[in-house]
Amino acid sequence: MARYARVTTVSMSGGSGDTAEERARTAVDRAVANIDRAADDDPDIIVLPETFTGLGCDSDMWFATAEPVPGPTYGRLAERARHYHCHIVCPIVRQDGGRTYNSAILIGRDGEVIGICDKMHPTVSELAIGVTPGVSAPVFETDFGSIGFAICFDLNFRDVIEDLASGGAELVCFPSMYRGGLQTRIWAFDHAVYFASATPDEGSVIVDPLGNVLEQSDRYEPIISRRVNLDFADMHIDENHQQWEAIKAKYGDAVELDILSPEARFVLYSHHPELSVEDIIAEFSLETTQEYFARSSLRREEALRGASL
Amino acid sequence: MARYARVTTVSMSGGSGDTAEERARTAVDRAVANIDRAADDDPDIIVLPETFTGLGCDSDMWFATAEPVPGPTYGRLAERARHYHCHIVCPIVRQDGGRTYNSAILIGRDGEVIGICDKMHPTVSELAIGVTPGVSAPVFETDFGSIGFAICFDLNFRDVIEDLASGGAELVCFPSMYRGGLQTRIWAFDHAVYFASATPDEGSVIVDPLGNVLEQSDRYEPIISRRVNLDFADMHIDENHQQWEAIKAKYGDAVELDILSPEARFVLYSHHPELSVEDIIAEFSLETTQEYFARSSLRREEALRGASL
Repeated sequence: MARYARVTTVSMSGGSGDTAEERARTAVDRAVANIDRAADDDPDIIVLPETFTGLGCDSDMWFATAEPVPGPTYGRLAERARHYHCHIVCPIVRQDGGRTYNSAILIGRDGEVIGICDKMHPTVSELAIGVTPGVSAPVFETDFGSIGFAICFDLNFRDVIEDLASGGAELVCFPSMYRGGLQTRIWAFDHAVYFASATPDEGSVIVDPLGNVLEQSDRYEPIISRRVNLDFADMHIDENHQQWEAIKAKYGDAVELDILSPEARFVLYSHHPELSVEDIIAEFSLETTQEYFARSSLRREEALRGASL
Repeated sequence: MARYARVTTVSMSGGSGDTAEERARTAVDRAVANIDRAADDDPDIIVLPETFTGLGCDSDMWFATAEPVPGPTYGRLAERARHYHCHIVCPIVRQDGGRTYNSAILIGRDGEVIGICDKMHPTVSELAIGVTPGVSAPVFETDFGSIGFAICFDLNFRDVIEDLASGGAELVCFPSMYRGGLQTRIWAFDHAVYFASATPDEGSVIVDPLGNVLEQSDRYEPIISRRVNLDFADMHIDENHQQWEAIKAKYGDAVELDILSPEARFVLYSHHPELSVEDIIAEFSLETTQEYFARSSLRREEALRGASL
């Protein structure tokens, strides 16, 4: 069963003004204008950059943009989410009681909060001014798929992607100050997830589960957008490729095989209106990459025991 | 202190003949011809493809190419290593008592065996025909640097690169049947090591510690070669870049800063005849990526404890 989603990310700089409140308010004005433009494509989710309300502020003013949820920024974006019936990722400096977090708020189509992710690995300088780290990286369910977050510096720590992968994330949103580059492709490839980054100015990317960059923003195209299919599974060529001919002969273009040649991997997508990738896997006795590597490790353990090593 | 090494890898197909012995012998003829050509560049190390003596054989004949070390193939390559006063990586199916391994033999400049690495993760089909796995991935010292191995399917299992990185490998040799592609760049980038692959026919690569492909073999250039500098350290831009100007002002091109922009990383190379990268690090209070991430994690732990999370 094809599970299509239109993923949109916005590259943008911050607001203007002399106070944290003014900077945040004008940054939200800018974000709303971008959301209104992005809405032409009828997105399922729009991702904004890390703490976009504090972009360009010095450290003190950045910290002072902190606001609770619900709060003014959340309120204005929730209204847009309702209006366009889409999800919006709203990354802000967030106040909760006495604590301050660097957070991404996942807003649902009705404007409700689906979940909040706190940056697990604030930088040393963020920690020094009092940012509280997140404890783990949660995964949230939406009507189109499972979504997790890595926020900026998080991209350097594998515990984040391991949390997300074990939680079943299909799409990782990466609101960030820096672009990540190769590392965004590495995480997408290593764990077979889509990756959607939103950074200031330019260099946001949408990466597919084979690590291919599908879209990249630049000065001419600060808003990037892609329809992806979340009904997919990644596989290793080794013991699956014998079935390719039979699959294509039976299902034609209702099933897509995206083959990554030197890496010996492929992703199977179902565009079929009734059959899911799981159905195809069962019908043709396919094995996912994860299952194949687990089986290989098991056989290895047996061989080591057999050789008394 | 610049620590230069000329790294050479050979893409080649196997031998011919009706028996395992003939196939192995003619494959070694081919390898020796390639080594003689490669020697024009005066390499410090030459890497051959995975089990090159059994290339193109079916499974039974491949297994039958197994030979001990010392043995005929090792003997002929050791003679070439002595002749050219260089290291040679000799990957063969290896017999040791009752066991059979898929191994890479590191031959030193005097023809001696510096070390043997057994493939840690043979494929399911290799295990099925009786290949014994290696227990861990060792690191060997040479006169130009520390060398480890990943053999083909090993490239899918992170325990291999983690063994190699914790053992201090500076250069990972990757004799393989498949090319690896993005994954060779991932391992090089994640652990800041050089990567040198040797595969059948074409697609061998030499990758630098930032994950850049320096050389790639193809049909016109089956032998690739690069002079690399193993006196390097990888760093994160965040808290080091303030020193760049002072370093360059003092040492000019005796110190090289290779900056990888969207990834926010750089590698510092010393080409200085007397100062090592460690000396430069100490003089300018720099911090390696590994140290920086460890410090960040420590600060995070403290913040979590402070917030009672």
